[in-house]
Amino acid sequence: MPTLVLIRHGQSAWNLENRFTGWWDVNLTPQGEAEAKAAGELMAARGLDFDLCFTSFQTRAIKTLNIALEAMGRLWLPVEKDWRLNERHYGGLTGLNKTDTAAKHGADQVKVWRRSYDVPPPPLEPGGEFDFSKDRRYAGAVLPDTESLKTTLERVQPYWDAEIAPKLKAGETVLVAAHGNSLRAIVKLLWDLSSEAIIDIEMPTGNPLVIELDAALKPTAARYLDAERATKLPA
Amino acid sequence: MPTLVLIRHGQSAWNLENRFTGWWDVNLTPQGEAEAKAAGELMAARGLDFDLCFTSFQTRAIKTLNIALEAMGRLWLPVEKDWRLNERHYGGLTGLNKTDTAAKHGADQVKVWRRSYDVPPPPLEPGGEFDFSKDRRYAGAVLPDTESLKTTLERVQPYWDAEIAPKLKAGETVLVAAHGNSLRAIVKLLWDLSSEAIIDIEMPTGNPLVIELDAALKPTAARYLDAERATKLPA
Repeated sequence: MPTLVLIRHGQSAWNLENRFTGWWDVNLTPQGEAEAKAAGELMAARGLDFDLCFTSFQTRAIKTLNIALEAMGRLWLPVEKDWRLNERHYGGLTGLNKTDTAAKHGADQVKVWRRSYDVPPPPLEPGGEFDFSKDRRYAGAVLPDTESLKTTLERVQPYWDAEIAPKLKAGETVLVAAHGNSLRAIVKLLWDLSSEAIIDIEMPTGNPLVIELDAALKPTAARYLDAERATKLPA
Repeated sequence: MPTLVLIRHGQSAWNLENRFTGWWDVNLTPQGEAEAKAAGELMAARGLDFDLCFTSFQTRAIKTLNIALEAMGRLWLPVEKDWRLNERHYGGLTGLNKTDTAAKHGADQVKVWRRSYDVPPPPLEPGGEFDFSKDRRYAGAVLPDTESLKTTLERVQPYWDAEIAPKLKAGETVLVAAHGNSLRAIVKLLWDLSSEAIIDIEMPTGNPLVIELDAALKPTAARYLDAERATKLPA
């Protein structure tokens, strides 16, 4: 039966600075790198191995994957990268400090943007300090200028259906290194969660979530490898 | 016109220990990592950019690529990995100290194994300390048990023809991070060098070789980016 492992990237520079990151390409902190290494060591120690890996176009997820694979002696595995596994696009909040944003727009409004299923923040304004719309990595793609979790899922799903699900159905063991919200999108798809239920799911960083699937890719079992840092599992 | 950049991995642990490495999967030393970072910084400073990267199945080449790409802000580029870009297989010499081997077999014999075009060392003996033939990364492939530069070229060429050359002909700018001998095989192919002429070509580690090609993939110009560490160019 297919096995899928999801891993959320370790601590990034802007996690530490309490800023909205989204698609801004911040790097891992040394702690984030250590989390990635520990995750790889844990996967190797538990005998996990992979046929194929997927990650986003963002440095913090790619490095998390590379560091974990190196710790497993598996840097040679094939890796597919795609922007559709990127973090949720935070629109006009990109780069802003979360506390400042709450002071400006009100804590309730910020909570809606952060935690609602389908309310996106205001769009990214062209030409600002954090406008990355001209970044070469996104050339040729039709990109969002802001996203809710709902619209994040709407661009994750076609990639899941076209690229990841067929590999799992073919019996390959797959590792996906990505972001809080692109991974929640996958979790919502797999467990067919309601838009309320997914809001309560928050994956810990650097803690591999091992999901056993049946032939139709419905989860039959799931566990975090680091049980001490586990959060609520979907049901 | 197509541009190809070749980069030989930086110093590895066994370069330092003066051992025959071949397909044994040793890691970069800190100096090797620094060479890779400097190479990436140099490529970025000279305005080089890529569409696609290729590397081997060996950690020292993959890490050289990853470190260089990170220094360029290009970790998101697609990367294809294949064992046919591996270092020359050193057969039964794998893991042995070069000085000890010269004492045992004679310096002249070792020189023939190291520097001749078509004399392979004795084959790797199954079951020995450095027998990697059961390594999962090579499952399913028909592998050599020793190689000369000639037989290295014979497995590089089909990969070059099938995977790398078509991308260059389509106008993509390509980076190949690999090994002393798999890169010499590519150089021999590109310049159509004789088996004598290729023996005199020795690429420096971590020094990107930029090759401008015509539409038939014949070199029209070539230069090492770090001119102070350049070696003889093919002609």
